[in-house]
Amino acid sequence: MIYLDNAATTIVDAEVNDVMITVMQHFYGNPSSSHSFGVEAKTLIEESASTIAKLCKCHQNEIIFTSGGTEAINLLFYNVAHVLKSKYVITSPLEHPAVLESIKQYGLAEKTHFVKLTKDVLPDMNHLEELLHEMPGAFVSLMHVHNESGSLLDIQMVGELCKQYEAVFFSDTVQSMGKSPIDFQAMNLDFAVCSAHKLHGPKGVGFLIKNRAIDFKPQLVGGGQSSGMRAGTENTAGIAGVCKALEIAHQTMSNTHEKLKQFKQYLAHEITTNIPTVQCVGDLQISIPQILTLALPFNDKTQSIHRELDALEFVVSAGSACHSLSDEKSMLNHVCIDNHIPLRISMSKFTTQKEIELFLGALLGLLKE
Amino acid sequence: MIYLDNAATTIVDAEVNDVMITVMQHFYGNPSSSHSFGVEAKTLIEESASTIAKLCKCHQNEIIFTSGGTEAINLLFYNVAHVLKSKYVITSPLEHPAVLESIKQYGLAEKTHFVKLTKDVLPDMNHLEELLHEMPGAFVSLMHVHNESGSLLDIQMVGELCKQYEAVFFSDTVQSMGKSPIDFQAMNLDFAVCSAHKLHGPKGVGFLIKNRAIDFKPQLVGGGQSSGMRAGTENTAGIAGVCKALEIAHQTMSNTHEKLKQFKQYLAHEITTNIPTVQCVGDLQISIPQILTLALPFNDKTQSIHRELDALEFVVSAGSACHSLSDEKSMLNHVCIDNHIPLRISMSKFTTQKEIELFLGALLGLLKE
Repeated sequence: MIYLDNAATTIVDAEVNDVMITVMQHFYGNPSSSHSFGVEAKTLIEESASTIAKLCKCHQNEIIFTSGGTEAINLLFYNVAHVLKSKYVITSPLEHPAVLESIKQYGLAEKTHFVKLTKDVLPDMNHLEELLHEMPGAFVSLMHVHNESGSLLDIQMVGELCKQYEAVFFSDTVQSMGKSPIDFQAMNLDFAVCSAHKLHGPKGVGFLIKNRAIDFKPQLVGGGQSSGMRAGTENTAGIAGVCKALEIAHQTMSNTHEKLKQFKQYLAHEITTNIPTVQCVGDLQISIPQILTLALPFNDKTQSIHRELDALEFVVSAGSACHSLSDEKSMLNHVCIDNHIPLRISMSKFTTQKEIELFLGALLGLLKE
Repeated sequence: MIYLDNAATTIVDAEVNDVMITVMQHFYGNPSSSHSFGVEAKTLIEESASTIAKLCKCHQNEIIFTSGGTEAINLLFYNVAHVLKSKYVITSPLEHPAVLESIKQYGLAEKTHFVKLTKDVLPDMNHLEELLHEMPGAFVSLMHVHNESGSLLDIQMVGELCKQYEAVFFSDTVQSMGKSPIDFQAMNLDFAVCSAHKLHGPKGVGFLIKNRAIDFKPQLVGGGQSSGMRAGTENTAGIAGVCKALEIAHQTMSNTHEKLKQFKQYLAHEITTNIPTVQCVGDLQISIPQILTLALPFNDKTQSIHRELDALEFVVSAGSACHSLSDEKSMLNHVCIDNHIPLRISMSKFTTQKEIELFLGALLGLLKE
């Protein structure tokens, strides 16, 4: 199997496995227990939050651990509706379903305005500024890296605009955490989010970063864990796992970036040179190197391409795994590439030159047959 | 360290660790992906649900995996408020904070009626029947095994009463799953719940069992995972882990029951014989053998007993870890054992005779000094 669907999920790093097993075997106390063994588990959570805070340039008490990105986003929108009581929401039609469905779930649909997109699958900055100008104090939700195209938002610029118009700024950083640096304070972020399984951490854990100046209340209630922000016995092994995964991602970020940039350029060049009817989605210069999405013209060969690649044990996707279950309009429709089939190739630090060559050979073979 | 706080949380079984590592390394695909590698992960979830369904005597599609017991209980009460729209809620004042706080969170406080308790920390069945009679179609929430005393509800009898009065019946089975058999159908249960970390599974995963005849909607929204009942990429390793933990618990249930019954009787007898002012909480015959809770008369020696035992590396607790963060009235107050300090000793299949002897020696030493 050649795994090129790392934007959907990633293999857990061996070091992360080890940390989790150590916690499950030796630090398994309940972090809410007042005895020493419980305090040890609680300390482990606090140390994980402290490490993550340093990596994301936020405060330790701004980290709320959750069961993943989706729960974190639900917690956020629950608060947008019930605590922030934002008058306006500004977002894009291509956000993750966790954002778009939360807008409906928490009664925000009527307050929501969609920013126009450029052909590079990015928000139109002029339109965003117009909206911000018309809607002071809006809650803005724009993803950092688009999960289907890899397009990279100029988060610094959006952060500055939000500051200027006194908007509250959330960026869905699920696809960028550990791949592109996040500076929570310098980027003027009020909220950011992490899902461990996107960066070689375990499934079932993640966190929300919340500006500590903003009031919040828990969505899931019970024992008052996580400083009252999220009830339920903390997933200590998962928390230690996401912390370790993020640490490793930061250590390897620049090397991985360079390697995958070359793979992406090479793939894009070879494919479009050999089959000129294939387009690359987005601007390759304004996207993360991990993701390359192709738009294949619809025809007899391309319509079965996903099945054929699957049979050859190349694991790629047509887009977001989460989108696969929803009936939202597709990304290609949104950026006016109609009658095309998307093919998303998403790489990780474990992707090798050999795998890229094998994939390229197979893809060209299938399309040229 | 001698660990006797298994009602708070348990060590993860080595076999469960192994299953989780295998999933994280070899079945890490996103269960929502349509390629074979994703389908494999989805199949693994379905097989886990099927195995659990056989053990709990329910249908496979009645299992909703969550991040643990607290999320499952929140999902349930969210639906009690928004979908079932129950006119009355009947519960006990000694339910877990996840239940008591959910009642407030989802606007059910005014509809809620509390059943009286017996001195054995169990609902008064006559009062329960009176309430059911007055409140047809009520939603009933009564825990199977009380987390602080170990008292065991006659769930079969409550199920029959609920059927007779057309009530919807939820039993918080977090403390009983894997310790006392659950027959979802025969017990007339509509909802039950599991938290993996209470039965040598990982923290951060659990499930709700929901009667399939009852309509439900998701609380956490997004990608439509878990048949639309719970958004968020499934924690496949955790799901395989809770399944394995429950399987092992069922295989070892009767041996563990016999062993711990003897330990409990021995401890209770030795302690109350040596220090007659100590009381056992609840009726030892109507409780699970895993939990023995003592009420120690308040005095100079007992007021520091938890600290002293902790210093000697005996891990026991004063009660529920979750309750430790809330300001609810204590269990001992509720069952009219005032001016006493609770000491909960909670054992597991890993508890040995040697550990019991050492603990007994230390406790008697401290109390008699």
